[in-house]
Amino acid sequence: MTDYAAPLADIRFQLSEIADLAEIATLPDCEQATPDLVDAILEEAAKLAGDVLAPLNRIGDEEGSTLENGVVRTPAGFKEAYRHYVEGGWNALPFAPEHGGQGLPLALATAVLEMWNAANMGFALCPLLNVGAVEALTAHGSPEQQRLYLPKLITGAWTGTMNLTEPQAGSDVGALRSRAVAEGDHYRITGQKIFITYGEHDMAENIVHLVLARLPDAPPGTKGISLFLVPKLLVNADGSLGQRNDVRCVSLEHKLGIHASPTAVLAYGDNGGAVGYLIGEENRGMECMFTMMNSARLNVGVQGVAIAERAYQQARDFARVRVQGRPVTAESAGTYPIIHHPDVRRMLLLMRAETEAMRALAYYTAGAIDRARHSGDADERAAQQRRVDLLIPVVKAWCTDLGVEIASLGVQVHGGMGFIEETGAAQHLRDARITPIYEGTNGIQANDLVGRKLLRDRGAAARALIGEMEADADALGDAPGDDLAAIRATLVAGIDVFGQATRWMVDTGEHDTPRALAGAVPYLKLAGATVGGWLMGKAALAAQHRLARREGDAGFNEAKLLSARCFAEHVVATAPALLPGVMGGGTVMSFDIDRF
Amino acid sequence: MTDYAAPLADIRFQLSEIADLAEIATLPDCEQATPDLVDAILEEAAKLAGDVLAPLNRIGDEEGSTLENGVVRTPAGFKEAYRHYVEGGWNALPFAPEHGGQGLPLALATAVLEMWNAANMGFALCPLLNVGAVEALTAHGSPEQQRLYLPKLITGAWTGTMNLTEPQAGSDVGALRSRAVAEGDHYRITGQKIFITYGEHDMAENIVHLVLARLPDAPPGTKGISLFLVPKLLVNADGSLGQRNDVRCVSLEHKLGIHASPTAVLAYGDNGGAVGYLIGEENRGMECMFTMMNSARLNVGVQGVAIAERAYQQARDFARVRVQGRPVTAESAGTYPIIHHPDVRRMLLLMRAETEAMRALAYYTAGAIDRARHSGDADERAAQQRRVDLLIPVVKAWCTDLGVEIASLGVQVHGGMGFIEETGAAQHLRDARITPIYEGTNGIQANDLVGRKLLRDRGAAARALIGEMEADADALGDAPGDDLAAIRATLVAGIDVFGQATRWMVDTGEHDTPRALAGAVPYLKLAGATVGGWLMGKAALAAQHRLARREGDAGFNEAKLLSARCFAEHVVATAPALLPGVMGGGTVMSFDIDRF
Repeated sequence: MTDYAAPLADIRFQLSEIADLAEIATLPDCEQATPDLVDAILEEAAKLAGDVLAPLNRIGDEEGSTLENGVVRTPAGFKEAYRHYVEGGWNALPFAPEHGGQGLPLALATAVLEMWNAANMGFALCPLLNVGAVEALTAHGSPEQQRLYLPKLITGAWTGTMNLTEPQAGSDVGALRSRAVAEGDHYRITGQKIFITYGEHDMAENIVHLVLARLPDAPPGTKGISLFLVPKLLVNADGSLGQRNDVRCVSLEHKLGIHASPTAVLAYGDNGGAVGYLIGEENRGMECMFTMMNSARLNVGVQGVAIAERAYQQARDFARVRVQGRPVTAESAGTYPIIHHPDVRRMLLLMRAETEAMRALAYYTAGAIDRARHSGDADERAAQQRRVDLLIPVVKAWCTDLGVEIASLGVQVHGGMGFIEETGAAQHLRDARITPIYEGTNGIQANDLVGRKLLRDRGAAARALIGEMEADADALGDAPGDDLAAIRATLVAGIDVFGQATRWMVDTGEHDTPRALAGAVPYLKLAGATVGGWLMGKAALAAQHRLARREGDAGFNEAKLLSARCFAEHVVATAPALLPGVMGGGTVMSFDIDRF
Repeated sequence: MTDYAAPLADIRFQLSEIADLAEIATLPDCEQATPDLVDAILEEAAKLAGDVLAPLNRIGDEEGSTLENGVVRTPAGFKEAYRHYVEGGWNALPFAPEHGGQGLPLALATAVLEMWNAANMGFALCPLLNVGAVEALTAHGSPEQQRLYLPKLITGAWTGTMNLTEPQAGSDVGALRSRAVAEGDHYRITGQKIFITYGEHDMAENIVHLVLARLPDAPPGTKGISLFLVPKLLVNADGSLGQRNDVRCVSLEHKLGIHASPTAVLAYGDNGGAVGYLIGEENRGMECMFTMMNSARLNVGVQGVAIAERAYQQARDFARVRVQGRPVTAESAGTYPIIHHPDVRRMLLLMRAETEAMRALAYYTAGAIDRARHSGDADERAAQQRRVDLLIPVVKAWCTDLGVEIASLGVQVHGGMGFIEETGAAQHLRDARITPIYEGTNGIQANDLVGRKLLRDRGAAARALIGEMEADADALGDAPGDDLAAIRATLVAGIDVFGQATRWMVDTGEHDTPRALAGAVPYLKLAGATVGGWLMGKAALAAQHRLARREGDAGFNEAKLLSARCFAEHVVATAPALLPGVMGGGTVMSFDIDRF
């Protein structure tokens, strides 16, 4: 029941029709993404995900990672799987070629990342965090730091971590207290960091911690934070590994899910201070973090897509074999698998439709990042970057909230068996539940969307998006068929209300910020439903064109039309009704907090 | 962080304004529910819940119940807590006085049941299942069975279980295979039952299993099922306990939540057959089950209310002490508890508002059951019974779906700490997740609402409800104030669409049942939001009357107006947008199941 097969047909369709990977492959530095190579990568990634990573998902949950005498052991099979992954060159896929990366488009890397996370989220978190370390070093590391660390982090021989959180400093990073004192060419780091994903483990030779800390004379808050590279094992000038640094794993958290992923409490400097090297400039650590924020948040959004796909596949496979009752559609006597029951079909189609919409949004945004990075035209790069900045909080929050809902629906499809841990459905719900929390809670994403992204340009980027959606909705009107007409009608209504809500947010945000922020989460949900509906509309139109041209698998294209229509009826149609909640901040802020 | 204090102010308000307990106390056989006694019961129940049961909730989750050599041990403290509960006479509260019950109204018993489940759902499941056994024996047991078993079950000295499910027979009870063969004045039962809540435990002297099984010559399906009483220890004619019956606990399930509650696999008849006594007539076992279905489903809905209240209190208490960041509302420098952040306030108010609406629906329905049982007027009894039959699936499904959502929001308020098991927030989500599944999945509730309750009277009971809601919405229009006007506007729109959806369901259900059933869950959600909005509107009006009369706590009444408005803006306002999903069965049923 816990098999996973990468949904290659939809992945290929969306890379083609939504991200337009063929166009990305025409951009400078993206030419290596030829159709043949893309196909080969997707096929091979699907094999590694399905054959190696997915079978370890349950054991990862049951065993978890364990700490004994400062040593963290990952679950049985993880070490070997990671060696497979590194030896296959998978870790290098998205990185620039200068230090050994394959330099492939992010849209493609995103599809592959989805597979790792669907197969085994507890495993995939290790390379996910490594991406942030590579990006920070690529953007801000000295040439010597890049020479010493990047090749090993890019192959995956070493792994990277992000050390932000302290007990008193979670969402409020500026409250952190870890100290860094200069000593010759390096610094001595002391302090305690919590919630460090793969902060200690046995899958790689070395671990490179990126640590936020304060210099003695640093100003308070986020303007006094610097970023340091603190290797678990010190690295000699020739790249060989030296002695153990003064950092150790004190404990692992006992978590609701992602048990395989060790969430470490790390103590720095119990013996005089860990050796750390400044990345970038002193007191500019937060800017370094912002460099990697967009891709980190995109990647967590992709985890939402991934866990939704996994939950869908598990529920579908169960519904096909679980025989129970006679559905009203039955033409003959006897019992049938529950997939014949109308409500089970509704649940499965909704899970599928929402997952496809989330995938569309994630791949579209990844493609926009590729364009923002590689387009030959500066205006185009800037326009794409504005689109990315606007959509990143939506990808992160909307996809992860839906990921939890879909994993919960997956449990529901199983009935009583869904509540029994051995079935595996409950694990997906437990694993998914972290994604709306980490990498900035979804409330913080909504605040970012409204308080930063909308207000800083007074809604200009949102209006550009709305204009493009309106034009595409018009195009749907020119196409024949009931499905597209129904999709178009709900989409037009959604865009209209999204436009009203955007204007209200910009106006209100300027003179009554608390009231605007109290409606930010419903606004983000409205944005997700509308943008998801737009992309599903594009997908439906493409599917209809393919049907008309007798191109590809007709069954797939017909299924896409229906999943897009289901998404329109169940999700896009509900979006306009979010408006009173968007504008309901007055009620929220009127409620006396002492009365809670 | 895991304290629980029963929300007595709202419980009293809703018993008074929504269930109208004072009027119930005027009905025959309900006179003992005097205001003084009701107050005393609520106060004392709150103490037992808060002081004895709630502190055992975490330990119940961590230790769970364990099986060793056929003996099930409940977690530390549970046995003593159960003794307290029995000695306090709490188990007898809702039962008829003939066999030792206190004969108090169900509305009051429902409020008390909410407290047990909020304090410790794993514990409260034991008496919850016992209620079913008492009701079945009261309605269908022979005088001798009632004499021997009812007094002990009513005090709680013995506990009852319900044995329906077998591996191949879950929602499809008719597929069960357990056998019963007549032997003198009793039967010999053989077979295996799964998912038996408190099927074996150490809290009571004896366990009385109610077991569904088939006679050798029984017709297939649900028409060939009989109900048997199978005591764990046989009972002598003088009521003393005799030898061990041929039933044993083979294993306990490893579940996502409610770890304290032992979910047993029971083997009957490994040594020749367990001695069982027929309850009611042969082959009429399903009718006996239907007798207790309404109260069992109400009680599971109450679990949804309860876990939501518990999650709300935990999130609120955390938000008051967790200092993190400076909210936009801050008037001075420094950091503040997160309860000051607009989005945290939105989450808490929404949790509170939804919990109050669920409580209103549960207490209202319990009050209707009291009226259906006790009214002196036969027409009134019948009308109330129709209302109850219509609303029961809504109470069960809507309150449990929301219970899961609210528990998940509770995790979210905690941020990263919510994902750490020691915090306790995650337990509520894990515990809540069973409630949409057991006692008939929420999909089955929706099928019941549409396929049985709507279609059997062609929507007459629903139309009666709609008429009453419309009249009450009009009354809101006569009252002053922005809050009531906003509440009324959303309510009127919700009722209108609920009416349209009801007509569509009745029409479609008659000629295209699968299409109707594929929209049954959205229809039930629409019903819940609308009926919840109606009752919150009544509550708001009552609060405003109290304010005008300077009656009661002004702060409470003002809070009620705002929570009702929040519910209107975030929940009732979204209800009309469910219509395309209600009517979206065509899309669902068009999707080829081989394409999933």
